[in-house]
Amino acid sequence: MTENGLGHREKVLNMNTMNPNVKRVEYAVRGPIVQRAVQIEKELKEGVKKPFSEVIKANIGDAHAMGQKPITFFRQVVALCAYPDLLEDNKFPDDAKNRARRILQSCGGGSLGAYSASTGIEVIRQDVARYIEKRDGGIPSNPDNIYLSTGASDAIVTMLKLLTSGEGKTRSGVMISIPQYPLYSAALAELAAVQISYYLDEDKCWGLDVSELRRAVEAAREHCKPRALCIINPGNPTGQVQSRQCIEDVIRFAAEERLFLMADEVYQDNVYAEGCQFHSFKKVLFEMGPEYSNTVELASFHSTSKCYMGECGFRGGYMEVINMDPQVKLQLTKLVSVRLCPPIPGQVLLDLVVGTHLTWTPRERTANLEILAEKAKLTEQIFNTVSGIRCNPVQGAMYTFPRLTLPEKAIAAAKEKGQAPDMFYCMKLLEETGICLVPGSGFGQRDGTHHFRMTILPATEKLKIVLENIRAFHKRFTEEFS
Amino acid sequence: MTENGLGHREKVLNMNTMNPNVKRVEYAVRGPIVQRAVQIEKELKEGVKKPFSEVIKANIGDAHAMGQKPITFFRQVVALCAYPDLLEDNKFPDDAKNRARRILQSCGGGSLGAYSASTGIEVIRQDVARYIEKRDGGIPSNPDNIYLSTGASDAIVTMLKLLTSGEGKTRSGVMISIPQYPLYSAALAELAAVQISYYLDEDKCWGLDVSELRRAVEAAREHCKPRALCIINPGNPTGQVQSRQCIEDVIRFAAEERLFLMADEVYQDNVYAEGCQFHSFKKVLFEMGPEYSNTVELASFHSTSKCYMGECGFRGGYMEVINMDPQVKLQLTKLVSVRLCPPIPGQVLLDLVVGTHLTWTPRERTANLEILAEKAKLTEQIFNTVSGIRCNPVQGAMYTFPRLTLPEKAIAAAKEKGQAPDMFYCMKLLEETGICLVPGSGFGQRDGTHHFRMTILPATEKLKIVLENIRAFHKRFTEEFS
Ligand SMILES: Cc1ncc(COP(=O)(O)O)c(C=O)c1O
Ligand SMILES: Cc1ncc(COP(=O)(O)O)c(C=O)c1O
Repeated sequence: MTENGLGHREKVLNMNTMNPNVKRVEYAVRGPIVQRAVQIEKELKEGVKKPFSEVIKANIGDAHAMGQKPITFFRQVVALCAYPDLLEDNKFPDDAKNRARRILQSCGGGSLGAYSASTGIEVIRQDVARYIEKRDGGIPSNPDNIYLSTGASDAIVTMLKLLTSGEGKTRSGVMISIPQYPLYSAALAELAAVQISYYLDEDKCWGLDVSELRRAVEAAREHCKPRALCIINPGNPTGQVQSRQCIEDVIRFAAEERLFLMADEVYQDNVYAEGCQFHSFKKVLFEMGPEYSNTVELASFHSTSKCYMGECGFRGGYMEVINMDPQVKLQLTKLVSVRLCPPIPGQVLLDLVVGTHLTWTPRERTANLEILAEKAKLTEQIFNTVSGIRCNPVQGAMYTFPRLTLPEKAIAAAKEKGQAPDMFYCMKLLEETGICLVPGSGFGQRDGTHHFRMTILPATEKLKIVLENIRAFHKRFTEEFS
Repeated sequence: MTENGLGHREKVLNMNTMNPNVKRVEYAVRGPIVQRAVQIEKELKEGVKKPFSEVIKANIGDAHAMGQKPITFFRQVVALCAYPDLLEDNKFPDDAKNRARRILQSCGGGSLGAYSASTGIEVIRQDVARYIEKRDGGIPSNPDNIYLSTGASDAIVTMLKLLTSGEGKTRSGVMISIPQYPLYSAALAELAAVQISYYLDEDKCWGLDVSELRRAVEAAREHCKPRALCIINPGNPTGQVQSRQCIEDVIRFAAEERLFLMADEVYQDNVYAEGCQFHSFKKVLFEMGPEYSNTVELASFHSTSKCYMGECGFRGGYMEVINMDPQVKLQLTKLVSVRLCPPIPGQVLLDLVVGTHLTWTPRERTANLEILAEKAKLTEQIFNTVSGIRCNPVQGAMYTFPRLTLPEKAIAAAKEKGQAPDMFYCMKLLEETGICLVPGSGFGQRDGTHHFRMTILPATEKLKIVLENIRAFHKRFTEEFS
């Protein structure tokens, strides 16, 4: 068909015609370094000789992939719901059966295979509301404010989408921390919303200072319309836990500056450091009295993926919206209805996570959290023995984001390769040790500083080896480039 | 805090500041009529007297909600994967256990709770490719071209997003059929892409005519840049099945007009009418020879939600891309990685659906499809006995989209209420009979024509009653407004 010219022509969809916003999206957690890690795994399988025998993926907060076991009760209920013939099986405890029956009764046709309401199964939204009330010491939560989602990711992107409007200098600006979880920058790029960066203070244990928020918003007003402020607490990638005072300050700031608050609280159970405690934005907002609790608009997010259960694969999550304009809420409900509904198995898992009547033994929960706390401490301790690595306490979440001192020659070598210095470092670490981390440049950091993010999820004995290997690598690296 | 003016001010996020594209989104399948149906259900529960005892939701293709049972083998495997202790249970057949073991081995940490690769679990993508090869008589399918998704909805929106660029007269235009499945119009509204409507020919059994495609694309070139052509086959809401010849014509048209083809084939097993057969766009494309198969860009979509299994709640799906620019493919992979991965239970279900080594008895599959075929015929027959309702054969999918002749006075009464005439009709039907349909105006139709969409999913005996009730209602309605 060269005759009619179909032969060698350009693609209809090519780099020039595709969505330019998508081109600007970056997502380092699954970026080039992870792709190389997957390649190396294949090479190992094919028998290629390496100085290590396995790739250790400490790049993503994926607990089960690192060997954490699911909560038995949760999985019993999921199995019962998926295959209700098991309700006749006396191997399953009665409380699991009761829970499964209750869920199935609220599913269309009594099956996990029916779509639910777009905001999620009503009974589960009620359970979520009760969980929030209990968590927040009785502050009421209305199931009509709960939207179930496909992981927290889905709800976060949906809220950012709602918040995006205007053109040029009136384009919506959204404040996000640096370092940040790159879902935020990616979603803002896709939406062509303006990213307003505020820096966390590494010297104050990645604390958040309102004067920095103010600096950032004032600078941004010159070129966009700031509309929202996103907070991740406990922090990813930085592992800090915000104090109650800090949250109050942030809420006051949002009220003064007229910003919609987005509180990403997916790590709400992951608090390890002594003296630290999780405070939900919702609770603090309501404790500040009606002048705040009746006005400040807040969306907060939770997920089945983290905490003690780590059920990432089910993609369960919810968001609670507070003080949202009722007409906008209708628009939100309409918008989520286009995608029909979040996956039902994920909704079921969420129902189990928020189950207020804890019938399952919380032994597994406690054990998982204790192990994480131990690994948080271990990580900090070992890294801080390495000269050239400086690491804040891992107060919460599942990550450490240590600062690297890199030799000038290494920085020059990276530049030559067109790589960020910490990308160069992490790539070399991967090739030499099989350890897969994410360079700090993927999360944002102050110019001239270098970091990596590592999860604390490898099993304790393996984590020790990982930390020792990084220590040894760092020494070699520093010597090589000195 | 009235002092500092926080008291009575506007919301930050309100109808003026929210995303204007979201405001333009419409999604009738879950629109006002469905909301009213939910309300009526609550009223019935509260004991409010109605001329009917239950609401029958024939508004959405949700088989399990209407009583269809899941395929036993599928649910056994899901239960085994969710709770692997059951692998020791001799109540489960060996082939289910083997299947579950194979899936778990390809999950991170051997758990459904781990994230997968963003494009989906590799083994499952391989299984999908083999399924496509078998379906298409051996035409090769490359697992690297397969992207698993959260239902077909997710993949469709992602492709439309990639295809959207430009401003003003260079803005991407996307051709969609009228009537259409409103996911398409909703996604285009959200993306601010230009919808190019082409009309299906009701008098030719909702057939697609290339001259109509040409008319539509030529008119559209005046105000946008046409880039893609979407086809739903078998059709929703119209139930037609495209002939091989028609598909060839469409492919030739797409090649000539330089359009990216999107083939929505989620109903590929739902073909009932004699003489009709499902032909995949992929297969026809390859049979047309290399001048087409090497050039025409195609994405085709499938889902766990429809066909014989109807597993909507699991939100499993995939898309296969053909002839996609390799650089754009990298961009696509990057884009889907931001949301991490599709839900694993949905991926598992998909793996079972595409399972080429059919170890489970296909008895359940055959039975489900036979019942649907019977109901398709029944629906057409009964509706065509009603004067004022005219109905094309339900050749495939799960819907009928009959044309209504409405009295002038009814149209005037609707106008007075500010409603589309068929919305007025469906609302009255709901209030009087409890039957929930979707007005044709929610899918698009030629001006001055009126339709509704009804699923054929209610159980046969119930469907008969539904059809009789609609027949009686239509008579009453016509008399009332004559
Ligand atoms: C801060 C934060 N928010 C949201 C998410 C998204 O999690 P999911 O979509 O699995 O719920 C993550 C995942 O790592 C995260 O770290
Ligand atoms: C034509 C068509 N495409 C896509 C979908 C989306 O289905 P799902 O997202 O459940 O796979 C539907 C659902 O009804 C449909 O009818």
